[in-house]
Amino acid sequence: MTHSITLSRRVDDLVASPIRDILSVIDRPGMVSFAGGLPSEDTFPDVGRFPVPQRQLQYGPTEGEPELRARVADDLRRRGLKCTAEQVLILSGSQQGIDLVAKLFIDPATLVAVESPTYLAALQVFKFYGACLNAFESSDQAKLRAAIKGRAFAYVIPNFQNPTGRCYSKAEREALSHVCDSTLTPLFEDDPYRDLNYDNCATDPICASLERAPWVYQGSFSKSLAPGLRLGYLACSPDLMPYFVRLKQASDLHSNRLSQWIVLQQLNDPSNPQRITNLVDRYREKRDRFEHTLSRYFSDLATWVSPSGGLFFWMVLNSTQAIDTTSLLSIALERGVAFMPGEPFFIDAESRPSALRLNFSHADAADVERGLSILADLVEAQIN
Amino acid sequence: MTHSITLSRRVDDLVASPIRDILSVIDRPGMVSFAGGLPSEDTFPDVGRFPVPQRQLQYGPTEGEPELRARVADDLRRRGLKCTAEQVLILSGSQQGIDLVAKLFIDPATLVAVESPTYLAALQVFKFYGACLNAFESSDQAKLRAAIKGRAFAYVIPNFQNPTGRCYSKAEREALSHVCDSTLTPLFEDDPYRDLNYDNCATDPICASLERAPWVYQGSFSKSLAPGLRLGYLACSPDLMPYFVRLKQASDLHSNRLSQWIVLQQLNDPSNPQRITNLVDRYREKRDRFEHTLSRYFSDLATWVSPSGGLFFWMVLNSTQAIDTTSLLSIALERGVAFMPGEPFFIDAESRPSALRLNFSHADAADVERGLSILADLVEAQIN
Repeated sequence: MTHSITLSRRVDDLVASPIRDILSVIDRPGMVSFAGGLPSEDTFPDVGRFPVPQRQLQYGPTEGEPELRARVADDLRRRGLKCTAEQVLILSGSQQGIDLVAKLFIDPATLVAVESPTYLAALQVFKFYGACLNAFESSDQAKLRAAIKGRAFAYVIPNFQNPTGRCYSKAEREALSHVCDSTLTPLFEDDPYRDLNYDNCATDPICASLERAPWVYQGSFSKSLAPGLRLGYLACSPDLMPYFVRLKQASDLHSNRLSQWIVLQQLNDPSNPQRITNLVDRYREKRDRFEHTLSRYFSDLATWVSPSGGLFFWMVLNSTQAIDTTSLLSIALERGVAFMPGEPFFIDAESRPSALRLNFSHADAADVERGLSILADLVEAQIN
Repeated sequence: MTHSITLSRRVDDLVASPIRDILSVIDRPGMVSFAGGLPSEDTFPDVGRFPVPQRQLQYGPTEGEPELRARVADDLRRRGLKCTAEQVLILSGSQQGIDLVAKLFIDPATLVAVESPTYLAALQVFKFYGACLNAFESSDQAKLRAAIKGRAFAYVIPNFQNPTGRCYSKAEREALSHVCDSTLTPLFEDDPYRDLNYDNCATDPICASLERAPWVYQGSFSKSLAPGLRLGYLACSPDLMPYFVRLKQASDLHSNRLSQWIVLQQLNDPSNPQRITNLVDRYREKRDRFEHTLSRYFSDLATWVSPSGGLFFWMVLNSTQAIDTTSLLSIALERGVAFMPGEPFFIDAESRPSALRLNFSHADAADVERGLSILADLVEAQIN
């Protein structure tokens, strides 16, 4: 870095990301990647069916297209969330929602409660704005209350969590909403995988049962439609909306109007429910095939819970001592296999298991076979 | 606001924007608006000509599409900026560049030098991150040096500035680059109006003549193509690029890939230079007609400099005492005319003239006639 430049304190840790550097080789021909959360391209709709009207090329409202906001609010109401179109903000992908929530709530030293492990880019953003993070677990109500009370907000991915794939039970949902309500802690519910529900789990928004606590619920069109559209949305308690609108305006004025048009047409298309059903069938099959191969190679080396939805297997290695999965990734990349190491999903190094996040939606059957076979060799060498 | 929620300190002033509230009525039928910076819709290209390939629906690189980055770098090199594709980051509109620069450089109490008046949403973002702003003027080199030295960066819109329409002279460009180099102050050059050049002004990037100072140059496709695409770019000195990539990734992963595809096809289309020529001709004619009407109604009430480019007239009222143009806007809206009040473009209230920003690109001839006639009546009543 040129010695003369003074940068903000918040970027101090920003560039040091070994994983980003390691994964930069992921596009090398022949690489089998279980690393990203890439949807399967054969699930993408044909966007050419919806030619975009010229009027969509003009500046649009910061909040998003009124028809799309109304459509999102309809869907959320059907899922039990008391929500009008005026409470919906269209986002340039749900990563933006994480940035906006951080901007709204986090000063240096602000306390934020998160799951651990959880979505690593949420951890990065919260820390970037200066948050002090502590972990909560949904299993014990007294501990849950202690972990959440006094925090600026609690961040949760209740459905098919990234990275663990876990889905909250009804009792866990009730416990979390009860604690947020009784401590008046805002709940930030991130729900990108909701539609990728393979085993018919109950996925009711936790925000729907809040009676007093402020809330932000967000969803994504990246998994059920296509990520290149960069479109998501948040809904929130009415008091918060004016802040989010101003924060969104200062961030990028408004979301892409081509994508907003295409997504609205796709959602309103009579074929859409069947398209989602097909997509879920396709992913369920991919999950089952992946797990079948995983069982063949890893049943003595690791444990996992079959994910009822989402895009990932979370594989915990059978090892008496910690294995540095980031180093394991370096070795695996030399053999042509990529995955996400477990470490960055945790808020601290203490008592975290040695784990790998494996995406099952993108690689084809032959690559899954080849990739898991190589990976099993490497893991076995590490464990023994 | 629900009393229990603790928000970040940075959002304290966020919601109080009288102008935003006032302008919320701007879509009322029959309203003549000179307020926004809306391009004329008849200048938009036919995006249906470029069907988007399905592969663009997948996640893409944070930095942007390689072909588009290379194309932008080519254009910038032709304009004198030493720049490779690796130094280009595709943005979700250039408002995002302002947010990323602020994230990179600004902590609470960080000193930033700006023009005054300047783009009001840049002032808002810099203040939001906690900057202390001071004004610089390009006319006197000693004063310029004093105003810029020690600042985290200097922010400038040298070509057809928003709101004044002013274009820097060659001498002013040299003075600013010299001062930035000799004080090692980073220069943030915002250049959204460059292509809307009606009088063949020299618009060479100031960053191109820097030899030592770090720099960020940004451009937009909102004016020369279409704003609904939400696409812009920044180029920067190589040391800064890793930071911007991480900041962009944390903000929205990457920019919309449909828009990136369409913009690349449009830029590479053989008809594009002629399209820009037509657009410039069209806007020049609109500017001239607007000024003709302005002269008929305002020659005794105000002064202005005919803008050589961009989208705005900056009209300074002939008044011995300050006129609150925000209050004037409230009255004008009741009569069906909107404009941008001058006050929010200045960093402080001292010695600022009473001024109105009038957009000339959007309203048609009949609306310009009607709107300026009404506005002249109202201004005359205020002045006398």
